[in-house]
Amino acid sequence: MKFPSFLPLLAGALLVASPLAVTAAEAPASSMAAPAKAAISRIDPTFWWVGMKNPKLQLLVHGPGIGGSTVALSYPGVTLDGTQKLENPDYLLVNLTIAPEAKPGKLNLEFRGGKKVTYSYELRQRTTPTDKTKVQGVTSADFVYLLMPDRFANGDPKNDVVKGMNASRVARDSMYARHGGDLKGVEQHFDYLKELGVTAIWPTPVVENDMPKASYHGYALTDYYTVDRRYGSNEDYVRFVQRAHQSGLKVIHDVVLNHMGSKNYLFLEQPAADWFHQWPSFTRSNFRDAAFNDPYAADVDRKLYGEGWFDTTMPDLNQSNPLVATYVIQNFIWWVEYTGLDGYRIDTYPYSDRNFLMQWGEAVLNEFPQLGMFGETWVQGNGQQAFFARNILPPVNGFKSNLPGVTDFQSYYAINEAMTKDAGWTDGIAKLYYALQGDWLYEDPMRNVVFLDNHDLSRFYSVIGEDFAKYKMGLAWLLTTRGIPQLYYGTEVLMKNFSNPDGLVREDFPGGWAGDKKNYFTAAGRTGQAGEAFTYVSKLANYRKTHPALHSGKLTQFIPQDGIYTYFRHSDAGTVMVLMNSNKDEKAVDLSRFAERLNGFSSGVEVTSGATLADLKTARIPARTAWVVELRK
Amino acid sequence: MKFPSFLPLLAGALLVASPLAVTAAEAPASSMAAPAKAAISRIDPTFWWVGMKNPKLQLLVHGPGIGGSTVALSYPGVTLDGTQKLENPDYLLVNLTIAPEAKPGKLNLEFRGGKKVTYSYELRQRTTPTDKTKVQGVTSADFVYLLMPDRFANGDPKNDVVKGMNASRVARDSMYARHGGDLKGVEQHFDYLKELGVTAIWPTPVVENDMPKASYHGYALTDYYTVDRRYGSNEDYVRFVQRAHQSGLKVIHDVVLNHMGSKNYLFLEQPAADWFHQWPSFTRSNFRDAAFNDPYAADVDRKLYGEGWFDTTMPDLNQSNPLVATYVIQNFIWWVEYTGLDGYRIDTYPYSDRNFLMQWGEAVLNEFPQLGMFGETWVQGNGQQAFFARNILPPVNGFKSNLPGVTDFQSYYAINEAMTKDAGWTDGIAKLYYALQGDWLYEDPMRNVVFLDNHDLSRFYSVIGEDFAKYKMGLAWLLTTRGIPQLYYGTEVLMKNFSNPDGLVREDFPGGWAGDKKNYFTAAGRTGQAGEAFTYVSKLANYRKTHPALHSGKLTQFIPQDGIYTYFRHSDAGTVMVLMNSNKDEKAVDLSRFAERLNGFSSGVEVTSGATLADLKTARIPARTAWVVELRK
Repeated sequence: MKFPSFLPLLAGALLVASPLAVTAAEAPASSMAAPAKAAISRIDPTFWWVGMKNPKLQLLVHGPGIGGSTVALSYPGVTLDGTQKLENPDYLLVNLTIAPEAKPGKLNLEFRGGKKVTYSYELRQRTTPTDKTKVQGVTSADFVYLLMPDRFANGDPKNDVVKGMNASRVARDSMYARHGGDLKGVEQHFDYLKELGVTAIWPTPVVENDMPKASYHGYALTDYYTVDRRYGSNEDYVRFVQRAHQSGLKVIHDVVLNHMGSKNYLFLEQPAADWFHQWPSFTRSNFRDAAFNDPYAADVDRKLYGEGWFDTTMPDLNQSNPLVATYVIQNFIWWVEYTGLDGYRIDTYPYSDRNFLMQWGEAVLNEFPQLGMFGETWVQGNGQQAFFARNILPPVNGFKSNLPGVTDFQSYYAINEAMTKDAGWTDGIAKLYYALQGDWLYEDPMRNVVFLDNHDLSRFYSVIGEDFAKYKMGLAWLLTTRGIPQLYYGTEVLMKNFSNPDGLVREDFPGGWAGDKKNYFTAAGRTGQAGEAFTYVSKLANYRKTHPALHSGKLTQFIPQDGIYTYFRHSDAGTVMVLMNSNKDEKAVDLSRFAERLNGFSSGVEVTSGATLADLKTARIPARTAWVVELRK
Repeated sequence: MKFPSFLPLLAGALLVASPLAVTAAEAPASSMAAPAKAAISRIDPTFWWVGMKNPKLQLLVHGPGIGGSTVALSYPGVTLDGTQKLENPDYLLVNLTIAPEAKPGKLNLEFRGGKKVTYSYELRQRTTPTDKTKVQGVTSADFVYLLMPDRFANGDPKNDVVKGMNASRVARDSMYARHGGDLKGVEQHFDYLKELGVTAIWPTPVVENDMPKASYHGYALTDYYTVDRRYGSNEDYVRFVQRAHQSGLKVIHDVVLNHMGSKNYLFLEQPAADWFHQWPSFTRSNFRDAAFNDPYAADVDRKLYGEGWFDTTMPDLNQSNPLVATYVIQNFIWWVEYTGLDGYRIDTYPYSDRNFLMQWGEAVLNEFPQLGMFGETWVQGNGQQAFFARNILPPVNGFKSNLPGVTDFQSYYAINEAMTKDAGWTDGIAKLYYALQGDWLYEDPMRNVVFLDNHDLSRFYSVIGEDFAKYKMGLAWLLTTRGIPQLYYGTEVLMKNFSNPDGLVREDFPGGWAGDKKNYFTAAGRTGQAGEAFTYVSKLANYRKTHPALHSGKLTQFIPQDGIYTYFRHSDAGTVMVLMNSNKDEKAVDLSRFAERLNGFSSGVEVTSGATLADLKTARIPARTAWVVELRK
């Protein structure tokens, strides 16, 4: 999710005047109707399963005047624990317990009060624990491809504009409008991704964002239970995950816990005022995670951080309300069981309520221990980043993260500096060394996601001044360092631009739309250096795929010397030496310093070029080059 | 202690060719003499006390052939636990237990083997537990003045050159020669320090450094039990501490655990080869603390870091040898009990053996729980710095620091950047905010020592381009932020220069030598801005002295906005608001944001200028200014 210093990417959204929280007292008269007119407009979760580890289920029932109803049910193994009214009479909470012996089927919920209403609620058979094609997890064996589904490929032009939705057009010439990309478009390019060596796809959120403007980015959810119809139906998304799995690709679902879109029905018709952080007038977050755990934080800063809104169009959820927490937790259990998706990327992770974060993680991992999970932690410093992950720390003010991994911004800062500043004692390429050195704070740093750029950041190729030698160095590092490498769509074909001021880092992938002049999805279309770049990434990613030393092998790094950073990935499956020369000049490297890792080997092969290192005594490494050397006995 | 990137300060030392470790086998024939000629040249500790908490005492006896002796003693309450031979026959270890009921007196140790030798070993009465003038500790109520005793003032020209010592001259025109300063010189200026508002003096090491070159800095100890005679005698040092205490000044003793000088008798005549880290040829440390706890460290890097020598003239002690550990631990207990000093500053703290560090700290604090203690931690990042202090972390690879405080290099980096770079989201003055934010990792960050410069660093006034407005900002921060403020001698009178390349940051204090053209010790001598600087520091330091909110008061910091950083120190004793405007322009500040700390107050007085803030609504703060505002009801 965007950071304030790059706010231009939200500029479209900022133009939208948003009503402040509408409290129940101010709700339209129609929704204040008497129980006599009761009818159910929806129940969340929209359906559920038998066989969940947690037998509890809390239904949020929505319908005019439903809050005045009583509920009855009769279903073997399902107990009604009670109901709970909310401030808004159009909602009713129904608490159920589903015993292990309950069978799938239709559960009739009878709402009584005025007119009797019966709602047939579906209980399905849980499948994820036994179906091994589902919920495969995400590990350091993966290579993650981050894409924006609106901007990658338009597989179905018919769903570009959906009647009744708030965005009435596509406009590919505007960075803030929808462009028409969809799930089918991604699916059509599974082969491309496979060729590139990708093993997991992370689309920015696919859940409904029915916002009038800037809905394309996906971080303003308007319906927790529906895929945005511009991308496809819920069923399409289930099939998308299935087909991805059949193709050997995993799917990471991008989730937003902190806020929603202002057109979400839960915000337009709020169950209760305390479901949101309410302010007398629009109040933006200060965007400083530092206030989360600053021992000296001013109360006002801490409150603004956690309760200020991300944007006028993004109301901030009050997750300290246990009803809100339950609603959100159930939703994110629902998506996994429903689709079989493999991992969650959690947007704006540190912005949420600390107790809620712990509850949410525990509940989701309790149902799906193998689920991949990493949170966005756009923070400063190794200590601060580790604070938000599973770490070796005791609880700090009651917070102890249970998040398996984080987006590793510290190594992102480091690779950017390594490629743009001269080497010094602690500068330039030395930053890469120091970024990893801080890993002693994590429970398992191999679960962290490393990256060169993403949808919120200037594209790597632009940051490095479109220097192809540096580009290859960055990619070599990405695919050989510790953790889960993540590529941002188009980086493999040298897409460029800066995040500021015009958001052009979210341009369409060339070839994703019928009639595109360029088509980078085909080898023939990848003219010039774009093709060379693709080949380089593909070669390295496919090498990585089949060489477990680069996934789960130990890492040994040597202190950078003379602008050269050297590390090894090693396991019983083999040893790979990576030499990175950040200098403008060729350098001679005395390899004897690395004896502890070179012993037992006599030569090496540079993986991307096929060049041979005939001996392992000295090497002359060209200027600005990374060698990825498989050692041979 | 110096860092490699600033190695020029050691240049003098580097010119000295140093013999490598001399093993016992190579020792001169004279010291291989038969037991028949046994005589005791020295016993370390040179004397000891009855009444120590730890009843054990290990004597290192040195004399030709003494290793062949047996030992007998008869003294009420003292038990001989046994003796231990060392590789070098000229040493013998004698292990004693001193029972609580033992009385002070002369303990006759009888050495038998050849000729019988009796050594009268003194046991004194311990005094520190009851004499409250001794071992007062160092806290955030203090203001520490760091000086180099060779460079501050020459109180006794007769001791400038001591016959028989390796440096045969003083040469004030050389930065690497001795200049003649001494303890008496410091003592003569206690009034100056008092006027400045100082409460504690930290001289660089006063223990003997009988090295041929560059001995002035003090970090190459040649005798653990003797004050360098160019500074005064042991008794002079005891009196120095007494007089300092009588003047209301504490004394911090600078200790080196990691290495010694190559002219140390223990190195020239090594008890055993395993008392030192021996290398086939001279091998320097890589100076990277990161290797201490890098989970990916190469063995060679970790070994080089901990066992490489600091310099050709500074052999590295093998503290993993329990005999070495005991020798060093006893020595540092000895200095405290002997002199009543108030605190230890531990040089090159992270270079020592991890188990030894824990043992050393535990043993010293066991005897003197109130002793002030902070270690030099010239490291990168909040996490890494906190790793070396008492922190909230569990043991990492068996290491759990028991060091109460550290030299806070992270805030040092921050204040330097705050004063030299433009404010940004995380840049410039924002660094000050982030430096403190990391304090959540410490057990008690108030024990950390904050500073603008020191003997290894470029002087603050030069770093900020001799900008007096910035100078005042830096000093205001130093004296109002959390922790123990430390000033480097001469910073109060605008002494300048860069550490690289010529070491001129260690120039003599003007007026410290008879005949000096300038005399900054007197108000009349502090002409121009030097006087203005002194007055500014003195006013603020003396204000701080009497305002406990600035020592032990809580700190509340607000997220920097618009280049302005605001924090409060507050307790029942009062509230002080600090506003730092790092901009080149005057700024209007809406103070309503700070309501949580301003509530209950109606006006304020700027401490350094006496100016009044008539209300606490808005303020216009001039460009590059720090206001230290005492709030009034």
